[in-house]
Amino acid sequence: MSTSLDFYFDVGSPTAYLAWQRLKQLREQYDLTINFKPMLLGGVFKATGNASPVANPAKGAYMASMDMPRFAVRYGVTLNFNPHFPVNTLGLQRGAIAAQEAGCLEEYLAAVYPAMWVDAKDMGDTEVVKSVLADAGLDAESLLAATQDPDVKAALISNTEEAVSRGAFGAPTMYIGDEMFFGQDRLDFVEERLRSAA
Amino acid sequence: MSTSLDFYFDVGSPTAYLAWQRLKQLREQYDLTINFKPMLLGGVFKATGNASPVANPAKGAYMASMDMPRFAVRYGVTLNFNPHFPVNTLGLQRGAIAAQEAGCLEEYLAAVYPAMWVDAKDMGDTEVVKSVLADAGLDAESLLAATQDPDVKAALISNTEEAVSRGAFGAPTMYIGDEMFFGQDRLDFVEERLRSAA
Repeated sequence: MSTSLDFYFDVGSPTAYLAWQRLKQLREQYDLTINFKPMLLGGVFKATGNASPVANPAKGAYMASMDMPRFAVRYGVTLNFNPHFPVNTLGLQRGAIAAQEAGCLEEYLAAVYPAMWVDAKDMGDTEVVKSVLADAGLDAESLLAATQDPDVKAALISNTEEAVSRGAFGAPTMYIGDEMFFGQDRLDFVEERLRSAA
Repeated sequence: MSTSLDFYFDVGSPTAYLAWQRLKQLREQYDLTINFKPMLLGGVFKATGNASPVANPAKGAYMASMDMPRFAVRYGVTLNFNPHFPVNTLGLQRGAIAAQEAGCLEEYLAAVYPAMWVDAKDMGDTEVVKSVLADAGLDAESLLAATQDPDVKAALISNTEEAVSRGAFGAPTMYIGDEMFFGQDRLDFVEERLRSAA
């Protein structure tokens, strides 16, 4: 029986990027279904009185220079800390909802995540986003237009509120049933669950 | 050749307690020398503008009810979240310095840590501390008296400043040479270093 995991993420979070990379590897290895739940991390922070760990200078320096690179090596993936961080991801996360509704979320993430966390592009700039999506063969115009759709806006708010109501205070936050896992650095516990379910 | 690890800790931190338990296991298994560095976590927070993660209600609830218990199970140790948390640990950490100078730090920690994180005693109360130390066969009177020694006070400040100057922003913080590891949840990376040094 496939294990179903709810993945609440924001493309602006480097640790959610690492989780996205690692979850795809785990899906190759185990019978795992990833339920993608785009949320607005800024909204989660506001609702819970939390802040990005990177906002603390000493913690941010350690995370960017030592801690996240360690996990990138462990997973065998590339992570280049984005000099434009923090990026306002409202448009990008609405775009993720729009892509999900259009049935192309995984392709959208395969374009947006590396643009943000490998190529270190300025993804706060709509023109940059447009060309990233177009280069990936996605319908950039219609995805960007859909970010203004009231249903898309409402769905992002709804996912964000849902995450907070389930106990989330940051990104990435994952659930298997009611069991919550906060942080890409807890995916070893997720893997334990997958292994014992196999 | 023994691997030398600097362990900056505060007995008031439940994650530093988990690290203390795990480091002792690693020392059994590998050729590891632990250099105990008592510091004042409140001083580190003040110097770096950081705060306890448990101070955020949503994060604190997750850590106490789900995340730290997971690691306690993994390590095979007991952790009972202390209802008196957060405890002012100034006296306890000066006591750790005094115990170190008297050559009985490991015995001191073997008494204080379980009192705090297994038996959930009110370790902010000097009378409780005194009886915990006496029950462990330590010279409670002389250790408590030594907490007023200017050299002991200065040594705790010095360790705290040293930690901050090396990049620490919380507890536990560990170093192998210049490589920093923040958090008991990074001891798997420490173990990788120990394994490759073996």
